[in-house]
Amino acid sequence: MSRATTHTLGAIAARFELELRGGDPALAIDGVDTLVKAGPTRIGFLANPRYRVQLADATAAAIVLRSKDAEACPRACLIATDPYVAFAKIATLFERMPASTPGVHASAVVAPGARVAASASIGPLCVIEDDAVVEDGALLGPHCTIGRGCVVGAQSRLVASVTLVQDVRLGKRVLIHPGAVLGADGFGIAFEKDHWIKVPQLGGVVIGDDCEIGANTTIDRGALGDTVLEDDVRLDNQIQIAHNVRIGAHSALAGCAAVAGSATIGRYCLIGGGAGILGHLSLADRVTVTAMSLVTHSIREPGEYSSGTPIQPNRLWRRNAARFKHLDEIARRVSAANKEPES
Amino acid sequence: MSRATTHTLGAIAARFELELRGGDPALAIDGVDTLVKAGPTRIGFLANPRYRVQLADATAAAIVLRSKDAEACPRACLIATDPYVAFAKIATLFERMPASTPGVHASAVVAPGARVAASASIGPLCVIEDDAVVEDGALLGPHCTIGRGCVVGAQSRLVASVTLVQDVRLGKRVLIHPGAVLGADGFGIAFEKDHWIKVPQLGGVVIGDDCEIGANTTIDRGALGDTVLEDDVRLDNQIQIAHNVRIGAHSALAGCAAVAGSATIGRYCLIGGGAGILGHLSLADRVTVTAMSLVTHSIREPGEYSSGTPIQPNRLWRRNAARFKHLDEIARRVSAANKEPES
Amino acid sequence: MSRATTHTLGAIAARFELELRGGDPALAIDGVDTLVKAGPTRIGFLANPRYRVQLADATAAAIVLRSKDAEACPRACLIATDPYVAFAKIATLFERMPASTPGVHASAVVAPGARVAASASIGPLCVIEDDAVVEDGALLGPHCTIGRGCVVGAQSRLVASVTLVQDVRLGKRVLIHPGAVLGADGFGIAFEKDHWIKVPQLGGVVIGDDCEIGANTTIDRGALGDTVLEDDVRLDNQIQIAHNVRIGAHSALAGCAAVAGSATIGRYCLIGGGAGILGHLSLADRVTVTAMSLVTHSIREPGEYSSGTPIQPNRLWRRNAARFKHLDEIARRVSAANKEPES
Repeated sequence: MSRATTHTLGAIAARFELELRGGDPALAIDGVDTLVKAGPTRIGFLANPRYRVQLADATAAAIVLRSKDAEACPRACLIATDPYVAFAKIATLFERMPASTPGVHASAVVAPGARVAASASIGPLCVIEDDAVVEDGALLGPHCTIGRGCVVGAQSRLVASVTLVQDVRLGKRVLIHPGAVLGADGFGIAFEKDHWIKVPQLGGVVIGDDCEIGANTTIDRGALGDTVLEDDVRLDNQIQIAHNVRIGAHSALAGCAAVAGSATIGRYCLIGGGAGILGHLSLADRVTVTAMSLVTHSIREPGEYSSGTPIQPNRLWRRNAARFKHLDEIARRVSAANKEPES
Repeated sequence: MSRATTHTLGAIAARFELELRGGDPALAIDGVDTLVKAGPTRIGFLANPRYRVQLADATAAAIVLRSKDAEACPRACLIATDPYVAFAKIATLFERMPASTPGVHASAVVAPGARVAASASIGPLCVIEDDAVVEDGALLGPHCTIGRGCVVGAQSRLVASVTLVQDVRLGKRVLIHPGAVLGADGFGIAFEKDHWIKVPQLGGVVIGDDCEIGANTTIDRGALGDTVLEDDVRLDNQIQIAHNVRIGAHSALAGCAAVAGSATIGRYCLIGGGAGILGHLSLADRVTVTAMSLVTHSIREPGEYSSGTPIQPNRLWRRNAARFKHLDEIARRVSAANKEPES
Repeated sequence: MSRATTHTLGAIAARFELELRGGDPALAIDGVDTLVKAGPTRIGFLANPRYRVQLADATAAAIVLRSKDAEACPRACLIATDPYVAFAKIATLFERMPASTPGVHASAVVAPGARVAASASIGPLCVIEDDAVVEDGALLGPHCTIGRGCVVGAQSRLVASVTLVQDVRLGKRVLIHPGAVLGADGFGIAFEKDHWIKVPQLGGVVIGDDCEIGANTTIDRGALGDTVLEDDVRLDNQIQIAHNVRIGAHSALAGCAAVAGSATIGRYCLIGGGAGILGHLSLADRVTVTAMSLVTHSIREPGEYSSGTPIQPNRLWRRNAARFKHLDEIARRVSAANKEPES
């Protein structure tokens, strides 16, 4: 992973304000790895208590862990209040970031009416259309398309093959993975007698600072007004955000989640993989929805919400599922047997 | 949204055959917006009765609404039988459509054996392969690939980064959003002793007139024979249509729906977001499937169909879900208690 | 489908070691088709018993079928132990494979530090970055991106618009359909006080020999260590494979399935369309998960597993679903009525 890059153990401790217990501060560290795999020039970490048993066999140069786990650690320790956060920061030192030579690759197609900052880097075969703006230090990998009226904010990075269709405004330090499509028309159709007519989609997309958007995720432009992600929203891969959705700051959605038109999600929400939110609903702040649940009404209170049934061997599941088709009748009989009024 | 484009209120009423009540027919209208946001040079609309309370505060130049709502409207009215349809048509006047200069962009790669109509517009960095055809007035945005044996019908528009792999024939006025892939191999594999062998996919894809296909949607080519969308089928984003599926005219599928191989969907069907249709099934005309439902058998009768369980606070859901695993046993006890024969 | 290519019936029988009963071995065959559609110069097949009734009307040159079905067949027979497998092999003769002239298309952008085998074919508008390798006979269609540290194994084929982001190593004969993204960052975020910080993703992706990966499927790079598909894994379209997942050899996943981070799937598993596997779970070899089921705990035994409820008319479903919210209470009453201790 790391190549040539090294940092001394002492420098790492100082930089991230971690207490170093044991170990040679001058030791050159050349990478990070899991608790089990990290060798004598790498830093490992222990965040999840269930891996504590692996401590005894650790061979890492040092291990990031909580103070209470230090005693059981046979190697040098880097004491952290939140080892996962500390580890994430240390790992950043060893990332190989893509080269970002400022300038426009010769194969890119930049329209005369586009504005590209001199410090921005436009990769091979990008297309920047008229009236598009790429701000300072932004980095576009190969095959990106920046359509009319779009703005790529300063220090943002579009990894490759990202398409901003029209009227998409990205904040600063936005990171977008390949295949993501922002600003395509929302799914607006009206039924007239015997066929559909298209409802023009006239709004845009606004993405706040520090958002991350996963591979092949789609975020449609608003019908009227904008689709909005506030600051620090984190979207995994293959997520679908329909027109005029609004997602509050610091919310995170796992892979394949989908939010239908005009739904509003609060701040600090966590939406599980494959979960669905129907249109025109509101979710309060700090709502968690578990994987593959379907939210069919607004949620006013913070907390965790679920739908679905448990996984079972198919033979058992079939029997139970067949009974579900008659659950109302079963419930009525139970009520009757208990001599209760029907609910 | 609108830039400079204006139409007089009277001209709009005349063009769409709407009765104008009140207001100055000569007033210049420069856009459309929601009932709440539309200002004195824009047209708003009231379609959904629950927004009727907002009428009192409207400041629009005129409001599209039903005759029965006109009395409560403090502004000029455009009377429509179906305000949403009328609004959709008016909004079309204010769409900024992409420039469509006929011709092939210098950066596009067009094979000698491709046929591109003189009136078609081929955007930057498109690839048109041998034996592909692009018909009159078709518009291809950047980064599209048109493979062998594909036909892009007249007036169709591929917004950007659309891939037609092989033997894909689009009708007229088809609109395809970025990242959509049509004509990739269907998922055909046969198990031989201890490994898979690939079943060649030899068919194509046929898309009728006036279809719309969403961003990152995939429509596979048939194994033998074609995968077919009849006229006016509307697909949202991230939909998966497997090989040899047939979708009847005027049906609409919401985001993330998926249809497995050789399934047949009737005309005027509505498939909710994230819903799944298993392979080799048939759905009658005018079947509606609600969001995230799974259709496991053919549906012969029109109507609305659902599966799944309601969203609940996780603590309550856990208890109920645990009981679902024993539902058959519960039902047997209820039957026994009622002295009934087991069903 | 076939163009000009013909093979004699006798040559086909000999090549795939099938017994030819009846028919002229010298007859020129120009394609394959379904039992119903195959005409007198094409080969049809009967694998699924429910299509046996169609035999009587067959007009194919010959029909691939099991010995026991031969008597009912009015045409020449090609006797096969597994007709579907035999048909798949015969069909291969009539596939039109893309032209694969070795060499790099003039419009492709190949970095000086990339290594491309002389026998490889790099299509129009591909981007091959420094430190990327394309091995013998590999075939890249238009618009592919091969990032740093990636290897495209011998005889692999990337159909079009495939993105290998970084540190992705493909085995031999891997087939990847358009829009697939391999090696994007996994979804690693850590919560610090009031905001997210990104956890660097430092691992890669390793794909075994003979894997097939569907259109718009995403496979993320590992956080630490690699995401792995062993040999002969088959992924349909729009599948999401998160960081550090491992999928055993010969497993197959249908469209829109999703596997969360660090889950391990055994060999010879079959995962249905839209199914979800939560993170950090293990599935044994030969586990089958039916469509749209959610796996929430590890599965130690081979077999078929399911979750969900059956599709019903919405009116009936509503009543049953409403009762599900009180299923625990219903079960308690049944227990009480039976004078049993609460479970």
